[in-house]
Amino acid sequence: MKRDTKRDLAGLGEFGFIARMARPFLQSLPAGVEGIGDDCAVLPWTKRERLLVTTDMLIEDRHFIRKRISPVDLGYKSLVVNLSDIAAMGGRPRWALLSIGIPAGIELDWLDGFFKGWRDAAKPSGVCLVGGDTTKSPGGIVINVVVIGTVRAGREKLRSAARPGDVIVVTGRLGDSRAGLCILLGGDVRDRDEARLIRVHHRPSPHLEEGKWLGSYPSVRAMMDVSDGIDSDLRRIMERSNVGAGVDLEKLPLSPALVRVARRRCFDPIETAAAGGEDYCLLLTVAPGKFDSLSAAFSRRFGRPLAAIGTIRRKSEGLRYFLAGRPVRFKSRGFDHFK
Amino acid sequence: MKRDTKRDLAGLGEFGFIARMARPFLQSLPAGVEGIGDDCAVLPWTKRERLLVTTDMLIEDRHFIRKRISPVDLGYKSLVVNLSDIAAMGGRPRWALLSIGIPAGIELDWLDGFFKGWRDAAKPSGVCLVGGDTTKSPGGIVINVVVIGTVRAGREKLRSAARPGDVIVVTGRLGDSRAGLCILLGGDVRDRDEARLIRVHHRPSPHLEEGKWLGSYPSVRAMMDVSDGIDSDLRRIMERSNVGAGVDLEKLPLSPALVRVARRRCFDPIETAAAGGEDYCLLLTVAPGKFDSLSAAFSRRFGRPLAAIGTIRRKSEGLRYFLAGRPVRFKSRGFDHFK
Repeated sequence: MKRDTKRDLAGLGEFGFIARMARPFLQSLPAGVEGIGDDCAVLPWTKRERLLVTTDMLIEDRHFIRKRISPVDLGYKSLVVNLSDIAAMGGRPRWALLSIGIPAGIELDWLDGFFKGWRDAAKPSGVCLVGGDTTKSPGGIVINVVVIGTVRAGREKLRSAARPGDVIVVTGRLGDSRAGLCILLGGDVRDRDEARLIRVHHRPSPHLEEGKWLGSYPSVRAMMDVSDGIDSDLRRIMERSNVGAGVDLEKLPLSPALVRVARRRCFDPIETAAAGGEDYCLLLTVAPGKFDSLSAAFSRRFGRPLAAIGTIRRKSEGLRYFLAGRPVRFKSRGFDHFK
Repeated sequence: MKRDTKRDLAGLGEFGFIARMARPFLQSLPAGVEGIGDDCAVLPWTKRERLLVTTDMLIEDRHFIRKRISPVDLGYKSLVVNLSDIAAMGGRPRWALLSIGIPAGIELDWLDGFFKGWRDAAKPSGVCLVGGDTTKSPGGIVINVVVIGTVRAGREKLRSAARPGDVIVVTGRLGDSRAGLCILLGGDVRDRDEARLIRVHHRPSPHLEEGKWLGSYPSVRAMMDVSDGIDSDLRRIMERSNVGAGVDLEKLPLSPALVRVARRRCFDPIETAAAGGEDYCLLLTVAPGKFDSLSAAFSRRFGRPLAAIGTIRRKSEGLRYFLAGRPVRFKSRGFDHFK
């Protein structure tokens, strides 16, 4: 029976689509399995360990422009975005699968570069490529990466564990990647600061050691990686944890390069930091009263502090932004893959 | 350093490409891991069980034509081709991931159909959808499916275990799917036989119970599923096992529908059976002297016999075909995704 109104995805958005399609599947999941809706699926295995699985699809002209990214950087980034999801669960990456659809005219040099970049990302993380699929693509390049990892049972950090009063924390600077992308699309790189921001966009570091370390602290409650921008990502934690959040915009950690480039190019670095994505640092919530000692220990371990950027609030308060204590309104929102 | 000659994939082919790219990764695999080159990657886990992982990428206009396959059949088949890889290892499928790239203009009705077909395939196999990725696609529909399964340690069946003298066996009829595809592309379905062949093409059954059952017999040596056609797939077993093979063409199991349609449409059903793909039955080798008792037990369990179609030979003999005991030459070859 065909419905009489045409419906498409535009009105639903990516997250609405996932919620709608996922419902019948989530209802039938066996106990002990965390399915759709977190950085990774969590699967039961041994008594002591859980399996983590994550996947990302990258399509040419949607996620990257072939002429604007070297094959080395693309190979690197294809793997790193998935490693970052394992980091977000406090896990250790172990195995990877790569499916790649290759258009006519792609040369072996390009593929050699891609695999060089992949190895650059794989080596420090210890992840092994164990399988995949290759095919010709009648359109552009298509890449699908899967990473399988493990985490000590009970240490996996979910998006659903935030509680009102928790401190909202990030493990790295925000906005560099988005600013780098804008400069890249503009096509006019003016100085070393701008080259640095592009580098951050192409060569993000997955916070694997940070994630594993944070995973071992019970005071760390919810955790995820910053892929769509904190404005969007924080909403995922809010939905899954049934809470609201307040963010103090002046506390968002900005790099000196971002601040200088923003001044010269006349854009708002704070807005870029909040709504820009692909930072691939971690966004977490910490139990009230535990942040200072956690941040001090983090500094000793990693040589830089954690940044407290706000507080988890009651659900009814929604997501609110403050500048010097005053509520402010925010124009742009994080990236939705269907808009 | 850029090389001075342009090289592309046309001359290398899919299997050459995989072999070339996989080499540096295979060299660095830890002990106990079977990587690229089999139906699934085999990963170590508990003492008693191994993890199996497989993935397949389907791209519109390469693997399917949107107007020629219903969303229900596409959803069904996307999962089944991966379940078949688990069957080929003697394993049990458990979890699945689905990445899907969706072009503008795809309606929710289409997606509802796709997920209905997915569930039709998932339900009898017990596999759970636990994650994935959704994104807009600027080109056609892109689907990437991953299935994770398990197998009792020591029961996993690899492509590398065939030995000269083994009987070559298939668990189902060959050629129906390819004939169905040809009729579909011709666009002119003449009778119920032809509709039945198209149905086999769109709704293949993964041989999961057969695979698990065969996996428990030590006399079953190498095993894989028939995805590219036995002419191509048998070469994979030959490469991995370092052997040759002889196939008796008159022993290939053909359906009555295929024989009738071939007669009316004037094509050679035996060639279709050998070079056509997507049968998704199992291709295995059985230790000499063990076939008759295995086939009798298989018949009791599944209500149909196994088909012995030839013998594994020494490597130097390559792949040879016989008709009534006489060597014959063969024009077409199995499907290579880069040609």
